[in-house]
Amino acid sequence: MVVTQTNHLAGTEALLERGRDLSTPLLRAVVDRLAPPMDTVAAYHFGWIDAQGRPARSDGGKAVRPALALISAEAAGAPPQAGVPGAVAVELVHNFSLLHDDLMDGDEQRRHRDTVWKVHGPAQAILVGDALFALANEVLLELGTADAGRATRRLTVATRKLIDGQAQDMSFEGRERVTVEECLEMEGNKTGALLACACSIGAVLGGADDATADALETYGYHLGLAFQAVDDLLGIWGEPAETGKQTWSDLRQRKKSLPVCAALAAGGPASEKLAAMLAADAKDGDGEHPGAHEDFSEREFATRAALIEEAGGREWTAREARRQYATALAALDGPEGRAMPESVRAQLTELADFVVERRR
Amino acid sequence: MVVTQTNHLAGTEALLERGRDLSTPLLRAVVDRLAPPMDTVAAYHFGWIDAQGRPARSDGGKAVRPALALISAEAAGAPPQAGVPGAVAVELVHNFSLLHDDLMDGDEQRRHRDTVWKVHGPAQAILVGDALFALANEVLLELGTADAGRATRRLTVATRKLIDGQAQDMSFEGRERVTVEECLEMEGNKTGALLACACSIGAVLGGADDATADALETYGYHLGLAFQAVDDLLGIWGEPAETGKQTWSDLRQRKKSLPVCAALAAGGPASEKLAAMLAADAKDGDGEHPGAHEDFSEREFATRAALIEEAGGREWTAREARRQYATALAALDGPEGRAMPESVRAQLTELADFVVERRR
Repeated sequence: MVVTQTNHLAGTEALLERGRDLSTPLLRAVVDRLAPPMDTVAAYHFGWIDAQGRPARSDGGKAVRPALALISAEAAGAPPQAGVPGAVAVELVHNFSLLHDDLMDGDEQRRHRDTVWKVHGPAQAILVGDALFALANEVLLELGTADAGRATRRLTVATRKLIDGQAQDMSFEGRERVTVEECLEMEGNKTGALLACACSIGAVLGGADDATADALETYGYHLGLAFQAVDDLLGIWGEPAETGKQTWSDLRQRKKSLPVCAALAAGGPASEKLAAMLAADAKDGDGEHPGAHEDFSEREFATRAALIEEAGGREWTAREARRQYATALAALDGPEGRAMPESVRAQLTELADFVVERRR
Repeated sequence: MVVTQTNHLAGTEALLERGRDLSTPLLRAVVDRLAPPMDTVAAYHFGWIDAQGRPARSDGGKAVRPALALISAEAAGAPPQAGVPGAVAVELVHNFSLLHDDLMDGDEQRRHRDTVWKVHGPAQAILVGDALFALANEVLLELGTADAGRATRRLTVATRKLIDGQAQDMSFEGRERVTVEECLEMEGNKTGALLACACSIGAVLGGADDATADALETYGYHLGLAFQAVDDLLGIWGEPAETGKQTWSDLRQRKKSLPVCAALAAGGPASEKLAAMLAADAKDGDGEHPGAHEDFSEREFATRAALIEEAGGREWTAREARRQYATALAALDGPEGRAMPESVRAQLTELADFVVERRR
């Protein structure tokens, strides 16, 4: 990166904090509408209470999406507050997908805490996920405006893509080979689409035309792909203390993430050795999780990670994150992007820098 | 009932058939949008293919909701076709809830076939349920009209109530006592709200004002409670060959359905004996399903059913179905109801008769 990390971090932190501060009151108010025990389960998921129901101040995630939704409103010349229902709706959909994905993937830890299905059981994880999804539509549609209808429609399209992405992700786990293109399509659905929506929903609520919203979606889509490329690196080489996940998290689940797909596509001795090893792994297991690869030692995961790196999968993915970052910023230089206030473009650039530099 | 059953059945069958015939093409078209393997899983759920993927013509359910949505459009003076996207959206939400509820409740059979989670696994049941929910919003919002926004808002409110109802239903299973009022509230949420929406959504899409839509919702809400009272009777005393469920289905799951709540509230020797038995049952199990009461014999369920009947729970529930039926029809006699075409009132009466007389 050519940016100076220290300067940007201060600005980024302020933007993330503003996103959290402005959107959390409405988020908590709508979650409070849930019938017991769903309100408690949701409050646990968001980190507002602990597993015993005591008030907590846990790490509720980076909250990149709310920050983006508020900047998005400013891109349309509206005050950041105009983006708040959009920020909350996107955050609700994001957390609905986390609740369900953690259960489907058998993930036991998120944000350094036990996942909802581990603490409250699978039924509550399903039901509260459903409820958050419904609340997302509710919080937008109760605005009762035509712009809210447009915003809900964009959110619905993004949610469908997110679900498609999860379906693709799960189907990849049972396959020996996945092309880099297939992986990028899956990640565009699973991560790009909702981040794209976060970047446009505030503008739509603020009265922006479709061309402006589309430019913001393009920025957000590629920012999402940059975010996911970094996530894929952290999923293999991230520090559990920083990521809140197990070591080799994605390898444990046989995820065909970008580093794996790129390594398999690279050819050469390390690539071939990795391919043979993953093919043998696939025959070994039953292709179903949770619990896949529970019997592997740390050393066996380390061997696979080293082969992925040797075949060039790690470096390729790091470069891909930078490529997507550049494509995201290019959308801000198009005709619709140039029409946005300079301060908005600066904020969006700042958050893009943060996304590709993050460690968790 | 004072109505002549034979005459009505012919008319009802025609209304149900019209609902299915007009809405199925759009339903199949939107389900086809799902990414593989979700399209296949959904097609299995709807009975269009069998577990091996071969074309099938299974019992796809009674399709009361689509029939009501089309009549609802006519109540606003619009052609029945105007209600089709509403019929499809309600059917999608209904089936999203079936997919998730069957998994949460551990139900292995629906409509005489294995449930989706039994055939395709829990992850697909979760994911395809999510996808159907998202499609429901999509099919309405892509109409792009203000009425579609109003319809989506009503559907969202109904969906949230449906989720609240499932939460209440699950929490009741772990409790020794549930009052009749609590049970009716739960059933109003779980069944009444979506049926209310089916009865108003066509009118909203057809341009009806809120007062007309509200009158139709009142009719549908009480029709839903009548429907559920009948369902509760079938859940204990229904014939598996007709219901497609196991014998004593609701007793197996410790459901605190209306007959149980009414029997417990009745007092007297049978009521007290039942209460003691259910309290002992609750201590026995772990309060979690699936698998609750798997170890009980047919005879033990028969004993409980006989006590419920002896305490008056069966007769009270049958009377409640008739009370709710009467309340539903009264909504059609209110000022907004009287403004509806006479043919619409006749059709809604016909379907109400069908609902309280059904055997499956």
